[in-house]
Amino acid sequence: MRYSKLFGKSRKSIPTDAESANAKYLLKGGFVEQLSAGIYTWLPLGLRVLRKVENIVRQEMENLGAQELLMPALHPKENWEKTGRWKTMDVLFKVKSQTGKEYALGATHEEVITPLVARFVQSYKDLPVHLYQIQTKYRDELRAKSGVLRGREFGMKDLYSFHRNHEELQAFYPEAIRAYNEIMNRMGMEIRVTEASGGPFTEKYSHEFHILTPAGEDALVICGSCDFAQNKEISKFKKGGECPKCGKTLSEAKGIEVGNIFDLGTKFADTFELSFTDEEGKKQKVWMGCYGFGTTRMVGAVVEASHDERGIVWPKSIAPFDVQVVEVKSKKPEVRAAAEDLIRDLEQHHGVDVLYDDRDDASAGEKFADADLIGIPLRLVVSEKTLAKDSVEWKFRAQKEATLFPSKEVVGKVVEWVNA
Amino acid sequence: MRYSKLFGKSRKSIPTDAESANAKYLLKGGFVEQLSAGIYTWLPLGLRVLRKVENIVRQEMENLGAQELLMPALHPKENWEKTGRWKTMDVLFKVKSQTGKEYALGATHEEVITPLVARFVQSYKDLPVHLYQIQTKYRDELRAKSGVLRGREFGMKDLYSFHRNHEELQAFYPEAIRAYNEIMNRMGMEIRVTEASGGPFTEKYSHEFHILTPAGEDALVICGSCDFAQNKEISKFKKGGECPKCGKTLSEAKGIEVGNIFDLGTKFADTFELSFTDEEGKKQKVWMGCYGFGTTRMVGAVVEASHDERGIVWPKSIAPFDVQVVEVKSKKPEVRAAAEDLIRDLEQHHGVDVLYDDRDDASAGEKFADADLIGIPLRLVVSEKTLAKDSVEWKFRAQKEATLFPSKEVVGKVVEWVNA
Repeated sequence: MRYSKLFGKSRKSIPTDAESANAKYLLKGGFVEQLSAGIYTWLPLGLRVLRKVENIVRQEMENLGAQELLMPALHPKENWEKTGRWKTMDVLFKVKSQTGKEYALGATHEEVITPLVARFVQSYKDLPVHLYQIQTKYRDELRAKSGVLRGREFGMKDLYSFHRNHEELQAFYPEAIRAYNEIMNRMGMEIRVTEASGGPFTEKYSHEFHILTPAGEDALVICGSCDFAQNKEISKFKKGGECPKCGKTLSEAKGIEVGNIFDLGTKFADTFELSFTDEEGKKQKVWMGCYGFGTTRMVGAVVEASHDERGIVWPKSIAPFDVQVVEVKSKKPEVRAAAEDLIRDLEQHHGVDVLYDDRDDASAGEKFADADLIGIPLRLVVSEKTLAKDSVEWKFRAQKEATLFPSKEVVGKVVEWVNA
Repeated sequence: MRYSKLFGKSRKSIPTDAESANAKYLLKGGFVEQLSAGIYTWLPLGLRVLRKVENIVRQEMENLGAQELLMPALHPKENWEKTGRWKTMDVLFKVKSQTGKEYALGATHEEVITPLVARFVQSYKDLPVHLYQIQTKYRDELRAKSGVLRGREFGMKDLYSFHRNHEELQAFYPEAIRAYNEIMNRMGMEIRVTEASGGPFTEKYSHEFHILTPAGEDALVICGSCDFAQNKEISKFKKGGECPKCGKTLSEAKGIEVGNIFDLGTKFADTFELSFTDEEGKKQKVWMGCYGFGTTRMVGAVVEASHDERGIVWPKSIAPFDVQVVEVKSKKPEVRAAAEDLIRDLEQHHGVDVLYDDRDDASAGEKFADADLIGIPLRLVVSEKTLAKDSVEWKFRAQKEATLFPSKEVVGKVVEWVNA
């Protein structure tokens, strides 16, 4: 992709007060554009990152044995009245049709998936079943803030699991934790699985998945020696105290919650009469778990956890492109020709995703600054200087040093690195 | 995929009055489930079809040089007031936040993309630019009907093009027509490019893309000898009259509109002050075109145009799976073993997408009926009978005859057919 042709380039000034790193860099870098408070357009560069996040999530859901479907965002009022949440969920957007019919805009999907599953599940043979979607959610937040971290319209993966009994649900629960850990590992993020309030449906804890960063909204009590972590809201333990798991000293940290998992018990199954016939022909309640993961929020959380004063440092697995090639403008036509050759070789012969900064109206300094802002993991420079040495400059975004590689070797090295 | 594990299997009775073929077969086959009038959940089987449609559309948009982005569905009221459509568009869903802020649910996106492009386009060097999204639209239809053909919530690809002058827009317009023709060809559908009313912004025609089927909502005047076609609403010509293009006799036909393209002139650019500086440093208006394509509607239109009394006949390019393997239940364990071997070979060794009807509680007759209902293009049968001849039965959904192929040859033949 030629940067000169890309829609949504970097901007020196951004229209809104960007109070958080993710808002600042995603807006400045041309990843997103704000339409209204908490409502963003994903520009081509940002959409590439979001799709990569979604695909990693999708693959791990498939590995978990879950099936993908797609539920609507317009939900009949009656479904939400049945659970009482039409009145109690204050972030629920409500819509009235010209026909008089009222809808909620889906803030979550228990009210839709439970009656759906009730239509298809009859026998113990139909269970367990695990269903997920990657879909847009709507929440009427009083104060949308922190860039794409807390929006009124946002992307989410929501998985729901349905089980014959509580034991089966409890056996699946750690499988879901493992899948979430795998997702985070693949995105190069460190995560804390944090015990939190289980909500009104259970006496047990729920689990939140936090990326540790000072920009986090949640305060956590964590152990530096073992994996103990609790949301401060529910924790009986304090900073400086003794870890209940390993006895070492507890500390406090801030985290961004990117996922959470809940044991819903039979709460929604009761409301929507979701039951099945067991091996003995008896009617039994279905047990449910739900497992959320914020896809758009994840993009923002990665920026919060992985940036420096110059811009974003994308993990390779979700970077918008593998490589950014900076061509330093020159009057010598050989420089452009060398850059074009390199691009052709990388893109067409080896299928490497390249963002090629071919702008004629940007200085070397502007191009380097934009490359740092955009944060693609590997930067290659083609200039008069590199050409004089028959070389290409190679620099990782996350490192300070640049090295020169002979032009002949560089494509092979890139392909090796991309596939590593 | 094992049919016994698939969520959303075929149903003998469906809960709603399915007045159209697409509603009937998509509901009975377990492709979609109706949540409310005009609002559907896409079950795993249906979502596979929808994703294939989306991917074909996406590829052809990329071939056209368009860039993908993703705009929100919640649009600030102010944007829609600027164009006057807050009041004049009667299908606009309106939402009021607890903060007092009002939004429209996006029924189309000119009100969002025009100011967006105005923020990024300054110079003639930034034009032309072609931007599209595949996104969910909301329209408060008085009467949602015809299954997934006219919904209140539906999927759409919307492309917008931005040009330096009218000539450039007019030169792009036939490119867009070609891309739409290519999309339809790849889905195995015959299409009529139909002249229709250009709407309030132009004196010219717009163009609609119709799939011809008696189930169509639109009446068209068409020529059987050349490609002349007009929507009856605007046509001066009549059935039995003389074709203005080739002189042969005109007839009437019904069509389902799956796409449309409009020359928007400078209407929205005027409203949102979208202009650019030309080569001489003068400010100029930007010219716009818009190009819609109903992705969910397309799925329904294909069913209308390609079914028989037993069910759907999917074109290969958008079928949910390439092959359906029917295992006829047998007490001989060799039958299951042979089916499992075949599946393993197809799926794991050759990457063929197989729906494997492994149900123990369904008769051969039920399985054959379901295979016809679901409409996967190729059906393979493994039974005691085929096994006795060391063969597999091969039958195309669109043909009547079944043939026996030696078991050893069948995988090779399937792979050859899939890649053809």
